[in-house]
Amino acid sequence: MTNTPEDRTLHLNAFLMPIGHHEAAWRLPESDPNANLDIGHYISLAQTAERGKFDSVFLADSPVLMGVPERRPSGKLEPTIILTAIGAATSKIGLIATASTSYNEPYNLARRFASLDIVSGGRAGWNIVTTAGDDAARNFGLDGVPAHKTRYQRAAEFVEVSTKLWDSWEDDAIVADKESAVHSDSAKVHRFDHDGEFFKVAGPLNVPRSPQGYPLLVQAGSSENGKDFAALYSEAIFTAQPTFEEGKAFYDDVKDRVAKVGRNPDQVLILPGIVPVIGDTEEHARELDAELARLISPEYARAQLAERFGLAPEELDLDRELPEDLPSEDEIEGAKSRYTLIVQLARRENLTVRELIARLGGGRGHRTFAGTAEQVADTIEHWFRSGAADGFNIMPAVLPSGLELFVDRVVPILQERGLFRTDYTETTLRGHYGLPRPDNQFVVDANIRVAASAT
Amino acid sequence: MTNTPEDRTLHLNAFLMPIGHHEAAWRLPESDPNANLDIGHYISLAQTAERGKFDSVFLADSPVLMGVPERRPSGKLEPTIILTAIGAATSKIGLIATASTSYNEPYNLARRFASLDIVSGGRAGWNIVTTAGDDAARNFGLDGVPAHKTRYQRAAEFVEVSTKLWDSWEDDAIVADKESAVHSDSAKVHRFDHDGEFFKVAGPLNVPRSPQGYPLLVQAGSSENGKDFAALYSEAIFTAQPTFEEGKAFYDDVKDRVAKVGRNPDQVLILPGIVPVIGDTEEHARELDAELARLISPEYARAQLAERFGLAPEELDLDRELPEDLPSEDEIEGAKSRYTLIVQLARRENLTVRELIARLGGGRGHRTFAGTAEQVADTIEHWFRSGAADGFNIMPAVLPSGLELFVDRVVPILQERGLFRTDYTETTLRGHYGLPRPDNQFVVDANIRVAASAT
Ligand SMILES: Cc1cc2nc3c(=O)[nH]c(=O)nc-3n(C[C@H](O)[C@H](O)[C@H](O)COP(=O)(O)O)c2cc1C
Ligand SMILES: Cc1cc2nc3c(=O)[nH]c(=O)nc-3n(C[C@H](O)[C@H](O)[C@H](O)COP(=O)(O)O)c2cc1C
Repeated sequence: MTNTPEDRTLHLNAFLMPIGHHEAAWRLPESDPNANLDIGHYISLAQTAERGKFDSVFLADSPVLMGVPERRPSGKLEPTIILTAIGAATSKIGLIATASTSYNEPYNLARRFASLDIVSGGRAGWNIVTTAGDDAARNFGLDGVPAHKTRYQRAAEFVEVSTKLWDSWEDDAIVADKESAVHSDSAKVHRFDHDGEFFKVAGPLNVPRSPQGYPLLVQAGSSENGKDFAALYSEAIFTAQPTFEEGKAFYDDVKDRVAKVGRNPDQVLILPGIVPVIGDTEEHARELDAELARLISPEYARAQLAERFGLAPEELDLDRELPEDLPSEDEIEGAKSRYTLIVQLARRENLTVRELIARLGGGRGHRTFAGTAEQVADTIEHWFRSGAADGFNIMPAVLPSGLELFVDRVVPILQERGLFRTDYTETTLRGHYGLPRPDNQFVVDANIRVAASAT
Repeated sequence: MTNTPEDRTLHLNAFLMPIGHHEAAWRLPESDPNANLDIGHYISLAQTAERGKFDSVFLADSPVLMGVPERRPSGKLEPTIILTAIGAATSKIGLIATASTSYNEPYNLARRFASLDIVSGGRAGWNIVTTAGDDAARNFGLDGVPAHKTRYQRAAEFVEVSTKLWDSWEDDAIVADKESAVHSDSAKVHRFDHDGEFFKVAGPLNVPRSPQGYPLLVQAGSSENGKDFAALYSEAIFTAQPTFEEGKAFYDDVKDRVAKVGRNPDQVLILPGIVPVIGDTEEHARELDAELARLISPEYARAQLAERFGLAPEELDLDRELPEDLPSEDEIEGAKSRYTLIVQLARRENLTVRELIARLGGGRGHRTFAGTAEQVADTIEHWFRSGAADGFNIMPAVLPSGLELFVDRVVPILQERGLFRTDYTETTLRGHYGLPRPDNQFVVDANIRVAASAT
């Protein structure tokens, strides 16, 4: 894929939130409220996305029970388990799992992703997150979440160690010579003895190098620390951008940071989220949107919002705007960029708490869009052609119906306009995104060694 | 299943070592030397075992690259990934994965097993191991393996925390009432704030209680600490017992320990390993056995054996017996029971190092048996009827052929003799083993609470 504006095409990722991204989706008559635990449901969603030639499916994750059990289906299955099952029932679509760098060990996680990449034939991706929130920390021996900056430092070292593990077997280490009784060549299997601030890991990994070398590295934090991290390590970025202007500014900012650290900006793809509510007519779409808003129980959402601001729920009046004196982003140790986004959204549109809740309930700050398939395609094309996105993270309000509508109605329009593939041309996740397979850091060393020993 | 000697039947587990349990199996002309990384290979092995009505398949694991890469296929796929893929391609057979309590966090592991239990419809099992060896420790920030006793203490607390996590959702916590907007009942989802010597975990798990309540708990260490641990926590025990006398003594010892801690000995199943090398005739079986022994490269095995004894490889003469002055089991911090087994085997049969290597290369200390299908069935029946085993861990020397022979030739004999099921009567792993679904520790508490609040 070249990146001249005329012939480049966009990328689509399906963000699978079990019953839809709208928090009240489970209450619709059409919804199975226990689909969050039904592996068949996930498989069928992924098959629909593959029918639509999506680049990938994606699962969010946090090692904690999120929110009040009353509010919505909060139980979940572990993402690498879901994606393994999906991988067995699909053949092309990429499989991106979120995993936390704050609450895992590199050796364990690296081998799980390498294994997923092997069993899926090169379709694994890792959404690298640092995990905000004290509740998650309390499941891992801590009393509260480590500082934001510390989390990103640990994340950086975690990724460094992981790439060492994934590179620890050279691609041609396996010889499998029955006659000479040599299965693999020790000289091409590297123990590296990493000894850093957060981790001490000897290696080598017990999984040989996988089809993609290693999983596609995805990132999804948009704070200053988050953007710097993304510039250094990520190959694709998920982000919540509620307006075109914010989306365009984010895009330019991040591509700039990527160039500044000496990487190729074309090889870091920016994928804002969009929550499309699609109707046959605009009015029909708005009706579904309003029906979903009506089904939200504002109390749970109010409590969650208050916690984000460090307030008691009663301090937020449902029918007034947010209080004036909220903390600044600097004072937040949790999810910084999401915090700022929410405050700005409420202030900009003078939303009452109730209205804000309705907006967040739909897409948690991502761009929500109720309209016809044509209108959704227009928005996507506009962002893409104006340099605010390399593709989109599609977050249907209701699943499976929202994804089916997108695949059956929006995708054909994008294909007609020459904006999206009509069939897969590649077999790996990096292949779909037009990204190269990474070099092996230890092979470079080996060549130098060979050259050195030859003199 | 009742446990009167007359009508009880035995259990069979297929221990899937990729290309077979014999270390030289990969060198046979029939073997695919890279099957260790081929998910299709594992699926087909499991389907063969399911055709044979086996209770379960099992995968060993250690978070480290084991042995010299030259010696045999040492790369592996992570077990819960393999078993998820197997689960999707089978419908009845149990899925037992090994995972280390020394190098995991309970929250992460508990949710993975709960997820596997849900996606497989109640077929997950966990082989709980503490992981011997300094090499594994060096992948997790340590310089060497923690003391044997400490490892088992951590294992005990790990299992306690895990059962709290698995029980943290009561079975009827999910209401899914769309009308009243109540998805689940918080009063039945328990935060428990465990605060122990090794772990501090708040809970609840983010996975609701799974079909089996929690995975079948399996254990595989046979030291004194290991047997005490098994008596307290395990529901099935894998063990290496090279002779009938040792097997019988182990069986009586463990059942006794189980009774002493107040559990029902019938609910802890003992499954010794057997490495059958099956031939049409006894002579044919012995030929295959000899051919495999011939394919071993003794140098790698000698180095590994020397390390176990804390010696340099040169200190072991291939054509002499083991040195006299080896350490006692007390001085070993790694795999205690396996160490003792190896020394006793060598001394009892006056084996040279070369002969010992040939014996270990076949089954690593498990009972190896070259013979006809009838002879294999006789051995199994003898151990079972004489109270030395509740079933067997079948460890074919060569895969897939060894498992196919067992299923096609040995299983029918066991069925004819009324010793083994002719079809599945249950759908869960615990069901196959005739074990009850565990009670939920928090429901007991809740009943007391209800009673208390009623007074
Ligand atoms: C589309 C999208 C998906 C995300 N998924 C997760 C997730 O699954 N788990 C998580 O901990 N954070 C996730 N995040 C990132 C959080 O929003 C992130 O923790 C938060 O923004 C904090 O990062 P920051 O402080 O750098 O902004 C996601 C973000 C986006 C835009
Ligand atoms: C059939 C069988 C399978 C085993 N699988 C593993 C394994 O996968 N990983 C592991 O660390 N230990 C495994 N073990 C246990 C080791 O042998 C154990 O770590 C060793 O015996 C130490 O325990 P002990 O010191 O209590 O004997 C297995 C044992 C048996 C009998």
